[in-house]
Formats: sequence, structure tokens, C-alpha cells
Amino acid sequence: MKPLLLITNDDGLNAKGIQTLIRVARTIGDVVIMAPDRNSSGLAHSFTSSRPLRINTISNVPECTIYTCDGTPVDCIKVCVEHFCPRKPDLVLSGINHGSNASINVLYSGTMGAVIEASASGYQAIGFSLLDHSQDADFEPTVPYIKDIILRTLKHPLPNCTSLNVNFPVPEDGIIRGVKVCRQSHARWLDSYEKRIDPRGMPYFWLTGRFECNDIEPDTDQWALENGFISVVPTTTDFTDKCSMPQIQAVYE
Amino acid sequence: MKPLLLITNDDGLNAKGIQTLIRVARTIGDVVIMAPDRNSSGLAHSFTSSRPLRINTISNVPECTIYTCDGTPVDCIKVCVEHFCPRKPDLVLSGINHGSNASINVLYSGTMGAVIEASASGYQAIGFSLLDHSQDADFEPTVPYIKDIILRTLKHPLPNCTSLNVNFPVPEDGIIRGVKVCRQSHARWLDSYEKRIDPRGMPYFWLTGRFECNDIEPDTDQWALENGFISVVPTTTDFTDKCSMPQIQAVYE
Repeated sequence: MKPLLLITNDDGLNAKGIQTLIRVARTIGDVVIMAPDRNSSGLAHSFTSSRPLRINTISNVPECTIYTCDGTPVDCIKVCVEHFCPRKPDLVLSGINHGSNASINVLYSGTMGAVIEASASGYQAIGFSLLDHSQDADFEPTVPYIKDIILRTLKHPLPNCTSLNVNFPVPEDGIIRGVKVCRQSHARWLDSYEKRIDPRGMPYFWLTGRFECNDIEPDTDQWALENGFISVVPTTTDFTDKCSMPQIQAVYE
Repeated sequence: MKPLLLITNDDGLNAKGIQTLIRVARTIGDVVIMAPDRNSSGLAHSFTSSRPLRINTISNVPECTIYTCDGTPVDCIKVCVEHFCPRKPDLVLSGINHGSNASINVLYSGTMGAVIEASASGYQAIGFSLLDHSQDADFEPTVPYIKDIILRTLKHPLPNCTSLNVNFPVPEDGIIRGVKVCRQSHARWLDSYEKRIDPRGMPYFWLTGRFECNDIEPDTDQWALENGFISVVPTTTDFTDKCSMPQIQAVYE
């Protein structure tokens, strides 16, 4: 039996990124897609419990069924595996995201929210992102690498509760230099809210912001991407800061 | 000058939990509160970028200013530190949440989303939660411990990008046995969506679910809580799974 690949994203079903991912996945196995019915960027690991979910069937071809859901990327994974997958998926894929989910962006990412949810629920899972926000970004250079990463993961399963956060560079010379398994770089968003006044004299605040990364050691995802490599970060569901345990324990002794 | 404590939560300003936290914080320093204007449980690390934020001023007393925001807990932190804090907060507090944020719940938690955001932005931050979901939960037993944990953190600052996820048990005998610094227990939610049919014959899906934890070793938060201890988990903004790096690296060599 062919492997079953479950696909979602956070940009919505019509995004070019997920359409590319579906095309690659169909060359490998049967595919079930459940994507949010609207752009759900920045929804992170949020889920819906205060209202029920609605699902729309877009395509019913057995080897490639497509649904949309009015919830978050995490909701898509949760409801799809229970009610809409014909069998347990062999691999959950999310993306290809329009824009980086490397470094601290993993915290905010709906794409990676779905991946971490799948991983926490016992599924193999990979998130793919391209460092180009534009709607018509060129995903073609990612195609052979995505196929390779999917096949390697099917052959060499990830450890329990570990997923992959894969980001693709957009090198100036167009040459991707290979794959680097690396750690999440420390960085932060320097947020700035632009205060405006509405026609009735009331203030409102628009989020703007600037990404600042001072941790570009050769073992980081940010270094890999800035040097033309694809970054692959093994990602955990365990947020314990094990390094600082002794220091904190000393405070409470 | 008194320390400045910035407070938020995910249950909204009217929740009993945040009112208790405000009361404790006011005995220690000046307080700025910015809470979501509605229940924002399960919003995790999501933030708002596709529309501007609106802020309401609820109270203008200089040593205790109170605002509500129509965004997420993460939004509250982001916009408050820039536009509504009179100076850099010495400590960011979130909660007291009505219900557990121990173990895998940290992934979904808006309370902890705010804390992790504050920590990623360079602030000291602590999330507090009580293992009682009810609106009229009894937060009084947490009061002396919260004061102690705040004072210890002001005296012994946390490492960069490390925050604390503090959960309070509700022991049957009412006796809290102390504080345990521990790791996040591995667990998962066994989700089940209840399918219903609306009056027009269309299906909709309600999330239900059951928490399953088989990792109750003595060094876990789940063990601490089940044995009457307050769990304190040092929490990181770095999701890299360092343990599995060698295994994944071997796949890509």
C-alpha cells in the first residue's frame, strides 16, 4: 500500500506553496489535504474549542482528497486524522510556507504549529518554508529537495515527538548548496506599533517589526540560510530549559 | 523606585485568577495590566498582524493602570511594553490561569504564550496556573507562594530567554507540600471530535478530548502536581531537539 501523506499549511488552500507541496507528495503516495479556508499565518499552536468546526469537501478523488476547515492549522490536523483520513497517515506535511519559519519564527508559525501538533500526537511530521513572502514566489527549486527529505524520513523515521523544521534559502546566485541539520538560532522581533488615529479621533495600533539575529554561528539555521543551505532543525514538543535547571533549582533549595 | 510588574492572562480581565495575581503584585511593586478583552484560552503564541489593535483604558491610577486589548495575550505583551508601560517592566506575570498549563498544555496555552513572548523579548517572565478550571476556583492558597516566587525571581534573575511555568495543585487534603523545580512531562491529548448535524442537515464538529500522561517520573511536573507540590518548569524559547541532532545528522550525511 502506498504511504499516506496528510498535508496542511497556514496560508490557505489557494497558496502556491501548498499547491507545490501537493504536487511533490502525489509522486510519492496517496494524499489527504485539509487546509484552513483563509490565511492563518501567525496562529502558532492555537486551536478552536469555543465553537464547532465546519469542513468543506473540495475534491473527492480517492488518492487525493481535499478539504478546507474554518479553524486553525492545528485544528486541521486534529480533526483530519480522526474523521477524514482513510487510515493513519505515514507522514504529516505542512507548507510550503511563504516566508521564513527559521529561528524564533517557529514560535509564531501556524505552519509549524500544525507540525508540532502532529508530532505531539504521535505522527511523523515535517514543515517546509521558503524565505520569500511573495504570493508568486518561485517554489520550483525546492521540489527535488522536498521529495528527497520526504523519502529519507519515510525510510528513517524521526524519534518520538521530534519533527523537522525545513527552511529553503533564496540565494542571490540561485544555487542551493545542500542540506544542513542545525539548531534554531537565537533571535527576536523588535516590534514597533504604529499608532494611528481613526476618523472618529480614536487611536489604533498596527504591528510592524524588524527581525534581529545576532546568533549566526555555523551550527545555526540562520547561518545555513544566509550561506545558501537548506536548514533542517529537529524540533521538540518539550519546552523544558534543561540547561538552566540546576540554576533554578538552587533558587528553591 | 518600586519594581514594575506587567500582568496579562488569557481568561480576560474579569477572571478571578488575574484579580488574585493583581492583588499579590500590588503588595510588591507598581503594576500595569493589559489583558485580552475576552476569553483567549487556547490561543497559544498567536498574534495579530492583519488588523490593528484597539486598547481600552479601564483604570488610570498611576501605580495600577489597567487596559484591555482586542488581541491575543502575545499582542498584549508586545503593544504594552512599547506604548503603555511607563518604564521597562522588571517582571512580566501571566495568569493565574483557570486550569492546568503543565505538561503538553504549555503548547496550547495563551497564558504561557504571553510568558514565552516576554522571555523571547528579553524580559523576566512567569506564568501561574491553578489546576481548577472553574470560574469560582479558590486561588487563596496560591497567594503566599506567588509572592515568594515573584520575590525570589526579582532577587535571582532568570537566565536569558528562560521563563517559569508555575502550576498549583489542588490537593484533596488542601495541603500544598512545597515547590518542585521539574521538567515538562511527556503527554498528549487524545482528541475526539463529536460530529453533529445542524437543522439544515450539515455536519459540524465539536472538540472534546482526554489528557493522557504516561510519564509520571518523580522529576516531572505531572508527578509534582499529583503529589501536592507546586511545579516550576524552566521554559525555553529554543525548540531545537538537541538530543536527536546526531540521529538526524546521520540521515543527511
